[in-house]
Amino acid sequence: MQAQIITIGDEILIGQIVDTNSAFIAKQLTKIGIKVYEITSIQDEEKHILHALTEAEKKVQLVIVTGGLGPTKDDITKQSFCNFFNDTLIENKKVYEHVKQLYKKYTNGDLLPESMHQALVPSKATILQNDMGTAPGLWMEQNNTVFVSLPGVPYEMKQLIKKEVIPRIVKRFNRPYIYQKTLLTYGKGESEIAKQIADWENQLPKQIKLAYLPSPGRVRLRLMATGKDEIVIRNLVEKQIKQVAKLLKDSVVGFEEDASIEELIAKKLVANGQSLSVIESCTGGEIATQFIQHAGASSYFKGSMVPYNSTYKIKVLGIDKELIDKFTVVSNEVAQEMALRGQQLFETHYCIATTGVAGPTQGETQDEVGTVYIALATPTGVFSKKFNFGKPRERVIKRGVNKALELLLKEL
Amino acid sequence: MQAQIITIGDEILIGQIVDTNSAFIAKQLTKIGIKVYEITSIQDEEKHILHALTEAEKKVQLVIVTGGLGPTKDDITKQSFCNFFNDTLIENKKVYEHVKQLYKKYTNGDLLPESMHQALVPSKATILQNDMGTAPGLWMEQNNTVFVSLPGVPYEMKQLIKKEVIPRIVKRFNRPYIYQKTLLTYGKGESEIAKQIADWENQLPKQIKLAYLPSPGRVRLRLMATGKDEIVIRNLVEKQIKQVAKLLKDSVVGFEEDASIEELIAKKLVANGQSLSVIESCTGGEIATQFIQHAGASSYFKGSMVPYNSTYKIKVLGIDKELIDKFTVVSNEVAQEMALRGQQLFETHYCIATTGVAGPTQGETQDEVGTVYIALATPTGVFSKKFNFGKPRERVIKRGVNKALELLLKEL
Repeated sequence: MQAQIITIGDEILIGQIVDTNSAFIAKQLTKIGIKVYEITSIQDEEKHILHALTEAEKKVQLVIVTGGLGPTKDDITKQSFCNFFNDTLIENKKVYEHVKQLYKKYTNGDLLPESMHQALVPSKATILQNDMGTAPGLWMEQNNTVFVSLPGVPYEMKQLIKKEVIPRIVKRFNRPYIYQKTLLTYGKGESEIAKQIADWENQLPKQIKLAYLPSPGRVRLRLMATGKDEIVIRNLVEKQIKQVAKLLKDSVVGFEEDASIEELIAKKLVANGQSLSVIESCTGGEIATQFIQHAGASSYFKGSMVPYNSTYKIKVLGIDKELIDKFTVVSNEVAQEMALRGQQLFETHYCIATTGVAGPTQGETQDEVGTVYIALATPTGVFSKKFNFGKPRERVIKRGVNKALELLLKEL
Repeated sequence: MQAQIITIGDEILIGQIVDTNSAFIAKQLTKIGIKVYEITSIQDEEKHILHALTEAEKKVQLVIVTGGLGPTKDDITKQSFCNFFNDTLIENKKVYEHVKQLYKKYTNGDLLPESMHQALVPSKATILQNDMGTAPGLWMEQNNTVFVSLPGVPYEMKQLIKKEVIPRIVKRFNRPYIYQKTLLTYGKGESEIAKQIADWENQLPKQIKLAYLPSPGRVRLRLMATGKDEIVIRNLVEKQIKQVAKLLKDSVVGFEEDASIEELIAKKLVANGQSLSVIESCTGGEIATQFIQHAGASSYFKGSMVPYNSTYKIKVLGIDKELIDKFTVVSNEVAQEMALRGQQLFETHYCIATTGVAGPTQGETQDEVGTVYIALATPTGVFSKKFNFGKPRERVIKRGVNKALELLLKEL
């Protein structure tokens, strides 16, 4: 059982936006045992859309299309579906009423003919109600392949996938189980890890696929198996991942299932009834953002601050000017003091602090670009470490964030 | 002249990572007049890679492949290229020395055979030197189509695209000019805008393609034209975009060329010698992150704070407890006071402040989920506005960030 995801929109092909929809959909499909064979992004052109649908029908049993369902002239997915399925657009009463109400609520104005275009749907389509917007989802079948068309706006698409699409797929298709688990390792390179686990890798059962996922400062190892018996494949993966975790003991910080590292940290903090604050200089708020993007952050996250240069580290955060003068602002001493001040101010159990030079140019000190000090204040003390994260800026910030999260998770 | 981008990696197809490489490459290609026909993400499987390369060769003259160049067993792009081009891997001396040096610098250890695998390249390939990592880029040609293989690590790929790939493409291919410009509008929906500019849209010259790009709280209108004469197509687009900007006068905040809205703000602040601070509650540091991600932020960005609940708004930021008791923490009064306090603390010309309920549950107050107050302190005063950004959390935060940036840009 394989699927293809097709995202429609010139904005993707000219690089104006990053296609985040596909990753979301792929994750949801993988969870229910559907393998995504390919993800394709194509232009807002009927010829291209029809070609993509035709090719997909040959290869997969499920095609999920996003984009091109807006009320404006450049949105041509519905018309292309009509041509592909030899169908015509008809007005749908339920969608008409929904669009009318949405329009009243948000604009208090007259209904525009452009909006009412949203109520036109292919006559053969099953309508998937879009609570978050005006464009309904469409479910159509042909030659044993299911085609689903969804709006490209991420929160509308997500809601439709969860509420309408996944439940229908689960009913419609027999699917194998896919079980995957990912090991998070920090501090070692891909080659080093590969050497360390070579014997283990050579004996891996064929049903298990191993992938190395390197990113600045960390490598994730993903084990994945597909099969008809859920328990069998789960045990297979669990057994092997335990073995490799043991081999890599010193670098492993945990497993990533559905959760990211900041979610693992959040879970532990909440379970322990503990709290967190963050004082960031060179990472510029990125660490705090990692936590606050997830619902429920307020139960452990108390606050953060970005005092971007020395003046405000002294004035707003309350770092001693003499300490900065003596050790410079990019130092273990100042990083630790930042963490302790943050811990005091926000009255938290833990506080992460970063200070360094993200680049591209040197900052207030003579330190090499890429130098970053990360400090962690804990209920029992404070410590810090010096790193050099190289270049460019993007990588320095990313490695700084990853390393800070790693240090905190290890401490919990 | 059309191109295809192929990204290789199961991690994309199972939704474990978002493919950001394609957008970067697409943007660079568009700039030099190359149209991206399609973006395809495929599995780490030789059969699939060969199929994708074969199909691409039929359709386009340039294929850019990323991923699958690591030193571990799941990386099979090089071997697949050998099979596609009927070639064999040979050791490249220059790459060997480069890998050796990199390895010495970062690990101080012995050279591993896994790392030295990186020095093996297809004999027919032109090598593109990768300064940031061990996997070299490859440039190969067959039947008048150019195939480029690049590592999937974003900063390695980006460096190679800029330093090696784009200059070679410019030499190798005759290309038309592509000119595009995007109008940023805020506060109106897609349908409303479509109605307002219907007459203008109907008279648009055929060479110009118009796209509506809606996102929470804003709609971008992109005009794009392709042609042989740079001046002709530039004038064509400029003339039309001026007309539509006039029609939408009240909603337009500016143009987005290469710059995002925060870059437009940064440019203005730097030009005026002015500075910025941010006090965020419900947007959780996301506004500050927008600015700090770009190099040069320290010249105008002085600092930010996320006092996530009332206690720390009082204790750390210095908001009067009585003010919060009287008006609640989610109010115009408190938002304005937050902006003024931030402006004072960080001694900046402007300070943005946000306070609200991102959801999914209500916070400290009885306000409806989605309620957000945004305040702006300026050199001449302070003002704030109340919004309801609906649901879910992700959208509330995103709309809050967009709206705050809009308010600030309008003020500058």
